[in-house]
Amino acid sequence: MTLPPHPGVPPGMATLADYEAAARAHLEPEIWRHIQEGSGAERSLAENRASFARWGFLPRALADLRGGSTELSLFGRRHAAPLLLAPMAYQRLAHPEGELAVVRAATALETGMVVSTLASVTIEEIAAAGRDAAAALDRPVPPLWFQLYLQPDRQDSLALVRRAEAAGYEAIVLTVDAAIKPAGLTLPAEVDAVNLAGMRRIRQTATPGTSGIILGTALADAAPRWADLEWLRSETRLPVLLKGMLLGEDAARAVDLGADGLIVSNHGGRVLDGLPSALDMLDAVSAATGGRVPLLMDGGVRTGSDVVKALALGASAVLVGRPQMHALAVAGMAGVAHAIHMLRTELEATMAQLGCARLDAIGPDRLWRFEQ
Amino acid sequence: MTLPPHPGVPPGMATLADYEAAARAHLEPEIWRHIQEGSGAERSLAENRASFARWGFLPRALADLRGGSTELSLFGRRHAAPLLLAPMAYQRLAHPEGELAVVRAATALETGMVVSTLASVTIEEIAAAGRDAAAALDRPVPPLWFQLYLQPDRQDSLALVRRAEAAGYEAIVLTVDAAIKPAGLTLPAEVDAVNLAGMRRIRQTATPGTSGIILGTALADAAPRWADLEWLRSETRLPVLLKGMLLGEDAARAVDLGADGLIVSNHGGRVLDGLPSALDMLDAVSAATGGRVPLLMDGGVRTGSDVVKALALGASAVLVGRPQMHALAVAGMAGVAHAIHMLRTELEATMAQLGCARLDAIGPDRLWRFEQ
Amino acid sequence: MTLPPHPGVPPGMATLADYEAAARAHLEPEIWRHIQEGSGAERSLAENRASFARWGFLPRALADLRGGSTELSLFGRRHAAPLLLAPMAYQRLAHPEGELAVVRAATALETGMVVSTLASVTIEEIAAAGRDAAAALDRPVPPLWFQLYLQPDRQDSLALVRRAEAAGYEAIVLTVDAAIKPAGLTLPAEVDAVNLAGMRRIRQTATPGTSGIILGTALADAAPRWADLEWLRSETRLPVLLKGMLLGEDAARAVDLGADGLIVSNHGGRVLDGLPSALDMLDAVSAATGGRVPLLMDGGVRTGSDVVKALALGASAVLVGRPQMHALAVAGMAGVAHAIHMLRTELEATMAQLGCARLDAIGPDRLWRFEQ
Amino acid sequence: MTLPPHPGVPPGMATLADYEAAARAHLEPEIWRHIQEGSGAERSLAENRASFARWGFLPRALADLRGGSTELSLFGRRHAAPLLLAPMAYQRLAHPEGELAVVRAATALETGMVVSTLASVTIEEIAAAGRDAAAALDRPVPPLWFQLYLQPDRQDSLALVRRAEAAGYEAIVLTVDAAIKPAGLTLPAEVDAVNLAGMRRIRQTATPGTSGIILGTALADAAPRWADLEWLRSETRLPVLLKGMLLGEDAARAVDLGADGLIVSNHGGRVLDGLPSALDMLDAVSAATGGRVPLLMDGGVRTGSDVVKALALGASAVLVGRPQMHALAVAGMAGVAHAIHMLRTELEATMAQLGCARLDAIGPDRLWRFEQ
Ligand SMILES: Cc1cc2nc3c(=O)[nH]c(=O)nc-3n(C[C@H](O)[C@H](O)[C@H](O)COP(=O)(O)O)c2cc1C
Ligand SMILES: Cc1cc2nc3c(=O)[nH]c(=O)nc-3n(C[C@H](O)[C@H](O)[C@H](O)COP(=O)(O)O)c2cc1C
Ligand SMILES: Cc1cc2nc3c(=O)[nH]c(=O)nc-3n(C[C@H](O)[C@H](O)[C@H](O)COP(=O)(O)O)c2cc1C
Ligand SMILES: Cc1cc2nc3c(=O)[nH]c(=O)nc-3n(C[C@H](O)[C@H](O)[C@H](O)COP(=O)(O)O)c2cc1C
Repeated sequence: MTLPPHPGVPPGMATLADYEAAARAHLEPEIWRHIQEGSGAERSLAENRASFARWGFLPRALADLRGGSTELSLFGRRHAAPLLLAPMAYQRLAHPEGELAVVRAATALETGMVVSTLASVTIEEIAAAGRDAAAALDRPVPPLWFQLYLQPDRQDSLALVRRAEAAGYEAIVLTVDAAIKPAGLTLPAEVDAVNLAGMRRIRQTATPGTSGIILGTALADAAPRWADLEWLRSETRLPVLLKGMLLGEDAARAVDLGADGLIVSNHGGRVLDGLPSALDMLDAVSAATGGRVPLLMDGGVRTGSDVVKALALGASAVLVGRPQMHALAVAGMAGVAHAIHMLRTELEATMAQLGCARLDAIGPDRLWRFEQ
Repeated sequence: MTLPPHPGVPPGMATLADYEAAARAHLEPEIWRHIQEGSGAERSLAENRASFARWGFLPRALADLRGGSTELSLFGRRHAAPLLLAPMAYQRLAHPEGELAVVRAATALETGMVVSTLASVTIEEIAAAGRDAAAALDRPVPPLWFQLYLQPDRQDSLALVRRAEAAGYEAIVLTVDAAIKPAGLTLPAEVDAVNLAGMRRIRQTATPGTSGIILGTALADAAPRWADLEWLRSETRLPVLLKGMLLGEDAARAVDLGADGLIVSNHGGRVLDGLPSALDMLDAVSAATGGRVPLLMDGGVRTGSDVVKALALGASAVLVGRPQMHALAVAGMAGVAHAIHMLRTELEATMAQLGCARLDAIGPDRLWRFEQ
Repeated sequence: MTLPPHPGVPPGMATLADYEAAARAHLEPEIWRHIQEGSGAERSLAENRASFARWGFLPRALADLRGGSTELSLFGRRHAAPLLLAPMAYQRLAHPEGELAVVRAATALETGMVVSTLASVTIEEIAAAGRDAAAALDRPVPPLWFQLYLQPDRQDSLALVRRAEAAGYEAIVLTVDAAIKPAGLTLPAEVDAVNLAGMRRIRQTATPGTSGIILGTALADAAPRWADLEWLRSETRLPVLLKGMLLGEDAARAVDLGADGLIVSNHGGRVLDGLPSALDMLDAVSAATGGRVPLLMDGGVRTGSDVVKALALGASAVLVGRPQMHALAVAGMAGVAHAIHMLRTELEATMAQLGCARLDAIGPDRLWRFEQ
Repeated sequence: MTLPPHPGVPPGMATLADYEAAARAHLEPEIWRHIQEGSGAERSLAENRASFARWGFLPRALADLRGGSTELSLFGRRHAAPLLLAPMAYQRLAHPEGELAVVRAATALETGMVVSTLASVTIEEIAAAGRDAAAALDRPVPPLWFQLYLQPDRQDSLALVRRAEAAGYEAIVLTVDAAIKPAGLTLPAEVDAVNLAGMRRIRQTATPGTSGIILGTALADAAPRWADLEWLRSETRLPVLLKGMLLGEDAARAVDLGADGLIVSNHGGRVLDGLPSALDMLDAVSAATGGRVPLLMDGGVRTGSDVVKALALGASAVLVGRPQMHALAVAGMAGVAHAIHMLRTELEATMAQLGCARLDAIGPDRLWRFEQ
């Protein structure tokens, strides 16, 4: 039995984990599994949470907290908190309003949203819904970024970029870690990658049973290469971020080639099992890029204290993935807005208890490494 | 079903853990939870116990134990053992006699007690009960210290200090780690912070749903600062201890500013989850303060061997929190006295088995670090 | 109830672990136990899997994957992938066709097979079945190697080697770690060590209850020695590999004495409990032998990512043991072929996701060590 | 329900763990608990097993095993294997024949036995039973040592030593770690410390409820001191061993004062909880004493591979405690003999698989440290 979403925030939702627990009842089992699962033995998925749990805090006592705030600026735009919504394919799997509910919540909480190539609503409609919500709530239009999966034909990729530019998206996020990915869900009839209508689809899955298998086949030969970054960088004036790198040397090369920002990520543990968490790689990526571009990260962020840990280890901001789907499934737009609000409340409480009145007071000295 | 407290020590109480297990049946579920719980995922709460478990002992064989004793002196006063009762709000939650039962037990066992600002009996009545019990039992009046939570208005804080001085309290313990704290229990009608009657109450909780959230609001702006320590130090001639620091550099600064002692503590894991245990920080605080003032610690002390471990790592004495509530709930004054007696017995047995006849024989050489 | 093998690959087999889980129902309990079990407390058995789990991956982003392949050459022969079938005694325990089904699957997937001295089909029939399958499928004859257990009488050992040479086996694998081994299974009537017909059998088990016990008895006195390697090396022109060493210094000595290859192995955790996994020893063996001969390894290989880890740590190829029995029991030749195909698919997907188009791109830099 | 002991070895006993599991049904619950339990949270008890589990083996391949043996000599006497029976109080708790059954088994297997001060049969009867069994089985009289607990009155201690000398005991083992020990079992009517008849008994337990508690009382004042060792050493010509030291510096001092051997031990985890295992301390004790006297150890030895580990880390021999009680309870003399035989079989198999033909080939190079 699948419960319909609540019209507003239901009682008992005090943490993002409460939404996660509640969401299961609101989703078909195969959709629930699809959202939750990691690849292989789910070691990377588990690491995403475990790597946060290995860190604790060393607070400054008696710090002056007056006039504190969590604000930051990214690519010239103000964000209320160092927290964005990660690109998620097919948000209508979780709620009939899908991306539209999410963009409205993002607007209400002044939170940036990264819209996926595989969104289940057109990127133009999402941007319009954001503008309408901003007007209705008397807020600024939220920062929207467009996440690009390279298409088999370059003109299709370029068409997506041009549409995003025209619709007011403020950055392009090129995801580079998902060209070779385990087979996914069979989509229900009413959900589709509407933004790719009419385009040749890329094969994301190796068909078991064929002979060449993967290497030496069209699938592997089409995987994105450095030249694709150079091409994209030359085609748009928007900031270009790369999503899905983990190594310092790759990060440095990306910046050398013009990347304006990086999202350190293991794709939520959904691609190669055995990848370390983004959190564990932040330090090395940060050292390799030396502050030349903003570093973002995602994977396993579930509480405000997780946000503080990521910032202490070098991130400028974090992205949140699956919790969007959980909150959507439970309570649509109200759920997503509530979830963001809880994260921000926890973030501020953590900062206050740590003696950090502003983001730049958060550094590695505020962290403690647990033993086991 | 909630059992009434036993009139005396019931059978089967051989360790403090037995009182803890038994207490559950004597307490309303929400009060039980309130006493036991830690914040967040309760990692700090767990660490408080785990950090003791990581240490074992290296005994000296064939040591001369003749004439041994656990006595020590703090601020010029004799204590039978290096063991005090930590400040606990609202002890009448656990037993109708609350703080009165506790102070009588403390007197019987010659054990110091730190009375909370949030005591559910007036500090004057508590002091009087101690004096009466001392007379009845022919013991010295026990060392009583007053734990201060800074009040929104400085004159209220000062009034509390003056009352404590007048009532014979021998030290002021300023708790600095609980200004920003998760929402607490709704108190039953018969229990109240009677010592704060007529004072403007400080808001300990951020109200979820408001907009500024925490930073930049009155709550964070009112958190105690270093200037408050200087002010308090200048206002009283009693020794002033700070409770709730974990960092060596903060501890050193506190001593520089005149603190007479420190209680290293993570507030029983009830404030910021992710704090290390006080035990794990002792060594660094001890190094930073270099023996200039006595160091006390609390968090997770449950056996006599825990006391030895804390002393070996640099503490002069330890405080015990929740076990007071457990023993109170099970058997009132008799329970608390029995719990203290068991701790002291275990402490002496451990010292004897370690080959330490006196407290100053307990040092880091007597400890062994377990592997996992 | 023991299920008969399926005629083809049954639904639901997506990993080797699925075959393992399914196999139980197809095997008599004592045969299942015999296949699965390790010696003693099964610590070495557990380590074989745990040592793979301790490693993760550090991928290169945006690598050029065009023209990738998993091919390699061993002793002058092409292998489709760095993956061979380990010698397994008595494969007819798992399926009536036993070794014949396995050699056909090996031929179909162009995978080398190491045939055991304790095969339950004659080595000549196995070789013939391989040739026939190759002709039928229009594939090359697969590389077959013969695994030798030294016999009590040297002329018997030599007779086995001469038969293997005559039947077209391309290498001799001398297993050196199983002379003293816990008592095994009582074989069912229809399964036997047919290749040892007429030979004096070696006693692999110490009889409990006798007095000299093991040391100082014929059993220990007959264990293989270095002189046996020298003798074997002098008697055949085939490459000689040693299977069952773990120490670098022994490996170096073996190479000095003419061994052409080494299979680092703890015999699937079936001999001395407490041995480290082969994976954990690879690095030291590799350093001690300095690339003079190919290193192979076995123990716990269950996924394509395991293969990558072994190669990154110094192996040229890996062998797979128990999964042969699982796939055989579930679906005979089709099962074994499917299992090999899945391993190769996973291997290629892992390489692609790591940014490794060819085997020589796999090195220790591609590995990440997990914390706990 | 308590089962009577079997007349001979029952089926299904393949390891000492099988005897342990079976013994429970043959013992009254409080006796079972008494035998099994450790003090406090039983961390030391658990460490005794865990510290063995942390070690594995690195075997030499192709070693020459001809003419191997486990024999050794201690204080001029031949032992069939590096394995003795630890002193155990009140063996009649486990079996009506108690120490008599044990000494007969020891004789049959040529294994040394250390008889406790708290034996439930007189030391003279035990020695006589050993001589009778030796004659009946045509074996040498087994090496018997006497374990001494110092008595409140020195003349009583001396009387015990003189009786042991007269009865043919070949060494005195002075146990120094059990003067302050948690209260023990109430003995059943038919079991008693018969060797102490008429002597003033030492109080092993602090009485809860008294005021001085432990330090500063007669109990602590009477604990053994270095002077007691010097006194004992001067009173007997038998070798004197100290049992229950863990620190290198204490061990060195004991040897300086004339101790002829040491038994590194934490008393089976029954005294101070938190002590490291003897195995973990062996290396340091061995370094501190530099081979001047034989080192023995006990605590957690349950398999032949445990014996090898202890020897590799510096022990000359090991003692086995609780398994005596388990085997006794299950099958009396036959059980104890079988248990010893199994340990010796496992020891020889482990040595053979390690490539060690004799005890002196067992060194730290043969050990591997597991990761977690
Ligand atoms: C159901 C699902 C769909 C996703 N879709 C996309 C996508 O379309 N594009 C993309 O770059 N990442 C996608 N991701 C990855 C997320 O952007 C993000 O990296 C990851 O979910 C972060 O981890 P978290 O879920 O633990 O917060 C998806 C993740 C999930 C769970
Ligand atoms: C129910 C409860 C009430 C407490 N009230 C106070 C208080 O009023 N003032 C204070 O400084 N600490 C307070 N604490 C913290 C204790 O003083 C002490 O730091 C902590 O309980 C020590 O850990 P333990 O409970 O593991 O012994 C309280 C703790 C608990 C569990
Ligand atoms: C049932 C069984 C039979 C085996 N028979 C042999 C054998 O006859 N000769 C040999 O060298 N190794 C034998 N081995 C060991 C394997 O060749 C191989 O080293 C081991 O199984 C690898 O570990 P894995 O099972 O985890 O892949 C056997 C292993 C098993 C489980
Ligand atoms: C029931 C029991 C009785 C014991 N009695 C004595 C004793 O009388 N004298 C002594 O020195 N040690 C005594 N010990 C300790 C043992 O000699 C030995 O140190 C310990 O049991 C070794 O550990 P194990 O049981 O893990 O082998 C006793 C231990 C147990 C479990």
